[in-house]
Amino acid sequence: MVVIQDRVRFVETDLMGVVHHSNYFRWFEMGRVEYLRQAGVFLTDLLEEGIIFPIRDVSCQYRSPSRFDDLIRIETTMDELSPVKMVFGYRIVKVDDDVLLASGKTMNLFTNSTGKIIRLPGKYYERLQAFTDGSQS
Amino acid sequence: MVVIQDRVRFVETDLMGVVHHSNYFRWFEMGRVEYLRQAGVFLTDLLEEGIIFPIRDVSCQYRSPSRFDDLIRIETTMDELSPVKMVFGYRIVKVDDDVLLASGKTMNLFTNSTGKIIRLPGKYYERLQAFTDGSQS
Amino acid sequence: MVVIQDRVRFVETDLMGVVHHSNYFRWFEMGRVEYLRQAGVFLTDLLEEGIIFPIRDVSCQYRSPSRFDDLIRIETTMDELSPVKMVFGYRIVKVDDDVLLASGKTMNLFTNSTGKIIRLPGKYYERLQAFTDGSQS
Amino acid sequence: MVVIQDRVRFVETDLMGVVHHSNYFRWFEMGRVEYLRQAGVFLTDLLEEGIIFPIRDVSCQYRSPSRFDDLIRIETTMDELSPVKMVFGYRIVKVDDDVLLASGKTMNLFTNSTGKIIRLPGKYYERLQAFTDGSQS
Repeated sequence: MVVIQDRVRFVETDLMGVVHHSNYFRWFEMGRVEYLRQAGVFLTDLLEEGIIFPIRDVSCQYRSPSRFDDLIRIETTMDELSPVKMVFGYRIVKVDDDVLLASGKTMNLFTNSTGKIIRLPGKYYERLQAFTDGSQS
Repeated sequence: MVVIQDRVRFVETDLMGVVHHSNYFRWFEMGRVEYLRQAGVFLTDLLEEGIIFPIRDVSCQYRSPSRFDDLIRIETTMDELSPVKMVFGYRIVKVDDDVLLASGKTMNLFTNSTGKIIRLPGKYYERLQAFTDGSQS
Repeated sequence: MVVIQDRVRFVETDLMGVVHHSNYFRWFEMGRVEYLRQAGVFLTDLLEEGIIFPIRDVSCQYRSPSRFDDLIRIETTMDELSPVKMVFGYRIVKVDDDVLLASGKTMNLFTNSTGKIIRLPGKYYERLQAFTDGSQS
Repeated sequence: MVVIQDRVRFVETDLMGVVHHSNYFRWFEMGRVEYLRQAGVFLTDLLEEGIIFPIRDVSCQYRSPSRFDDLIRIETTMDELSPVKMVFGYRIVKVDDDVLLASGKTMNLFTNSTGKIIRLPGKYYERLQAFTDGSQS
């Protein structure tokens, strides 16, 4: 599991006084990027090689609202990994009281620049697999 | 089914050159607001009565990328309605060629301002039910 | 002057109950894109030719808050045009009562993909100039 | 001067491959919130007392593009302070090479919930003044 912390931005709230639900997917993305970074996979490297990683499927369950200025913890796990796809799981937790705010999943594929599904090159896949095995044991 | 059209904004794209996946939930919201408006239910009226309508559960499947300046059609249906929750379904379609870009679902509850789940007052619920029955027949 | 209308999205509000100030620049951009479209200049064509159009300078004065579901009018004018830059002016007006909500300016340059300032190719510049002359007379 | 660091999010980029200009105002806001926090002024306290702090005027000059995953430094100063308004200045700097990416200004007023301009209560104003004097000496 990879963990980062962030603080809820004013702009992330809406007129109900809580964080707009769409923003959780932006937090998930921050967790995913950090997971990949810690595994030694940089999205900018993939893009330079012409590898695209479109999101195909997402879901989120909201349990408790988050509010402006809350300190939040974004917990990211790799739930499924193959050379053609990655399924990440996420939990957003309020740091102050450890309350679960939301949990979710995202599924990415790998494609070339024309949208054709490809296999992630071995050098990247192996790093991801090694990191994922290591972080789960 | 309630249908609106919109055009993809520049700011909605990301460095992969396509619309960022989080923005589809903002389009779903536009469809949902319009559905409710056509049913005679105005969110500003609910808020003035202290009725909050938090999102509890969302999902989206992405089929084909949407791009800057695409004209899109947001199709919204009520998939499940009760006095305590609404489940909406959505399809995002590219207007030019009728290609399905994404489909999704959202589930709202109704709560008071302290977060306690409440039943939607009859006057609103009846309008929603009548409109939903009418638009499906 | 080029005019478009749009409706304030729920996600564009913040916990003060009004539209977040950063969103006005996204409305200005919609006005600018439409101005260029009506002049026969499509940003996707420029990008395909490797012409980038970074924003260098922006400002906005806010006069009256806009709120969820307001119908707004985005008025866009070309205030200054040369082969190396475009200065656009904007007014955001509430449709219901013609109240000015905000006014602003943006300045774009044209660059190549490495960030070097370039002159807009004649075919585009002439269309812009002709449209701007025509829309001001 | 108050300094915070942040990392550019994927969603903050656009199809030109750089951060969308509107997002800088969201970074300015993060700097402003942190400045006020360090001065002992919490926006949530103001809101609870019915004090609103609308933005009236903003500007930004962009010098160099920022890109996905850049580590940025947000430097915030109080350029002008009175019981009715605050003018903040900002500099966004790339941490790796100390390159200035953008600089800007924002002006806030204080109002009550009906939009009437008010004077910031003494307890808040004095903290702000003391902190500002201290951080400039």
